[in-house]
Formats: sequence, structure tokens, C-alpha cells
Amino acid sequence: MSSMGAEPGTVRPGGRTARVRAAVLQAAGDALAEHGFAHLDLTDVARRAEVGKTTVYRRWGTVTSLVADLLADMAEQSLPRTESGSLLGDLTANARLVQRTLADPRQGALFKAVIAAATGDTRTAEALHHFYDTRVNEWAPCVQQAVDRGELPENTDTHEVVRAVSAPLYYRFLTTNSLLDEAAADRAAEAAVAAARAGAYLRSRGM
Amino acid sequence: MSSMGAEPGTVRPGGRTARVRAAVLQAAGDALAEHGFAHLDLTDVARRAEVGKTTVYRRWGTVTSLVADLLADMAEQSLPRTESGSLLGDLTANARLVQRTLADPRQGALFKAVIAAATGDTRTAEALHHFYDTRVNEWAPCVQQAVDRGELPENTDTHEVVRAVSAPLYYRFLTTNSLLDEAAADRAAEAAVAAARAGAYLRSRGM
Repeated sequence: MSSMGAEPGTVRPGGRTARVRAAVLQAAGDALAEHGFAHLDLTDVARRAEVGKTTVYRRWGTVTSLVADLLADMAEQSLPRTESGSLLGDLTANARLVQRTLADPRQGALFKAVIAAATGDTRTAEALHHFYDTRVNEWAPCVQQAVDRGELPENTDTHEVVRAVSAPLYYRFLTTNSLLDEAAADRAAEAAVAAARAGAYLRSRGM
Repeated sequence: MSSMGAEPGTVRPGGRTARVRAAVLQAAGDALAEHGFAHLDLTDVARRAEVGKTTVYRRWGTVTSLVADLLADMAEQSLPRTESGSLLGDLTANARLVQRTLADPRQGALFKAVIAAATGDTRTAEALHHFYDTRVNEWAPCVQQAVDRGELPENTDTHEVVRAVSAPLYYRFLTTNSLLDEAAADRAAEAAVAAARAGAYLRSRGM
């Protein structure tokens, strides 16, 4: 894996400041995954990251600020989209990426923690919305390509199609204890493509 | 509205015990909507409900137990499904009910609070899953009727179609700051019907 890889917490080039940030965000993610937002504590994060407490307090100041930075980093590190040449192929790749992330014990727990934190804190909510906007913007062009190829209606809301792929996976993740398996991912992509073809995501519908 | 109506907190017949439960659950819902799960406190709930603290502690014991009972009550009070004679009509009615609930300031905040609580507590998660199971079970027969009428493929997973209606509404509710309007509800129902017709929700797909 290259040093620019998408593995959370990978140390990226950029000297001590970047290394400290990577270590602190990795530690913050671990702490959130293990104990949730309510128990997130900058002193504990500094200890886990083996970084001076003063550095962490000076740079991030509050747990809210730290979580916002973690989400910004998760958005940056979100893998570039794959291009398979077909809409179903592209959206299936996206769905499987979401499914693997949520089904991963650490990542799944981390997402639950930040979604929960966002329900009670405006700044965290903004950072979470920004994370999803970044991901949706990254994948929307594969839907536009399908429109350009004539596979989907002209006026399709490309961002809404991308959201439609993630939605059933997050809904299952948060509201059931069912296994989030690859079949669920494939079904999410297939359903989004079928609905998009049928014109369910046209921009003119008041969205 | 009858005394058996679905309005949360409506006093139902059944004497003092039922009245106390209704008042306490209403107060618990208010407190959750205002301050979230982390600040839920049985003494505060008793004060809001104008019920003796001892009664609340004896009957519910813990905030987790109180939230589980609130979710059980919300499931019981969930409106019976409307039947319009068409699948799209039925699922649109369901989607609009979900949309109105999440877009309502008190109910929306209450759902955010219990979803957040469920991410960090197994018993609350079970109660939340039970709430969604109850709702999905209530609406699945309208999908089965569409299968029986020949509108959908034989082997359609009826529960999965119902979940597909709610999923984009919850996803938008939790991951964006977009308005959750009636157009979003109508689109969710239309997309679920289109995908179901295309066979995206067949049971044989390993679900």
C-alpha cells in the first residue's frame, strides 16, 4: 500500500505535523469506535496517540473540533471511485465499499459514533454532512456518464442516484441487526439503477 | 380524535396505571427531543410528568428501560396502514407518514435521540429494531397484495420493499441538512415500486 493509500490512519508524508495528526486521528477513531462520542476525551486520545496532551489541546481544543477534523480526513481519504464502464458496475463498486466499511467492526462502530454525535451537535452534523457530500460528489460523475451514454433519462438527479445506493445499507445498519453482506450491497446498486431507469430520480420532481 | 388515536401521548383508557404510563412516556419523549439520551434523567421525567419519583423509579428503574418502553409504545401507536388499492398509493401513504414524522420538530428530534442511543446501548438497539420490525410487518401485506395482483414478481421480499421506502428518507434525515419534503416521500415510494417491479427485491438473492 502506498503512503497515500486510503487506509485510515496511514502515516502520510509531510513531516512531524502530519504524523502527529495521523496518530491523533487514528487514536480518536479507535476511542470513538470503542467507547462512543460521549466518552471521547482529549487526554485519553493524546495518551493513545503517544502525543503530548498540550499539543492535542492546542491543535484541536475540543472533542467536537477533533471529530470534525477526523471526518474531514475520512472524506479526503475516501477512495477515488472505480470506473467499470457500466452504471451497474460503478454503483455496485460504490455499494460494496459502503457495505465493507459499515460491516467492518472498527469502521462500523466509528460510523455509528459519529452519526450519533451528529444528532446532538451542530458542528459535528455539518462535518458529517460534508463527509457525505464529498462522497456523493465523487461518485455522481459515473451516473452522469450513464446519462451521457443514454442509459438514464436526461434530467436525472445524479447525486440522488448515488444517495439511493447508500440509503438502504445505512438504514439496515441502523435499524436492524441483520448482517450487512455483499448481497445487500448488490441489491442496493441494482435497485438504484432500476429506479433511475424508470425515471424516479428526475430533477424536475421538486427536489 | 378518539382516545385510541395514534397521537403520541394521548391518554388511553385503562385507569391510573395507563394514565401514569402515558404521562411518563410523553415526558420522556419531550425530554429526549429537547436534550437527547445523554441527559435523560428519571427524576426530571417524573417532574415533567407530574408523577411521583418513586413511581417512575419503581416502574422503569433505568433510562434504558424507559426508552425501551417508549419505543414499544410508539410501535403500538403506529397508525394502522391505509389501503388505497394500488401499490404506489399504499407505499406513498407510508412514505408520507415517515416523512411527516421525521420532519416534525419534536418527533424528528425524538427519532434522532433514540437512533443515537441505540448506537451505544444493546437494549435500546433491540427496542429500536423491534419498533422498525413492527412497522415493516404492518406494511408488508400491501406489497404482498401487489404480488397477488400480479404487479410484482412472485418471489418479492415484501419486507425489503417496505424498508426501501423508508431508507432514503432516513438517510437524507441523518446525513444531509436538506429539507425532508413531500416530494422526497413521493420519490421514495416511486423508486421502491420501480425497483420492485424490476425484480431488485427477489428473495432468492441471498437475503
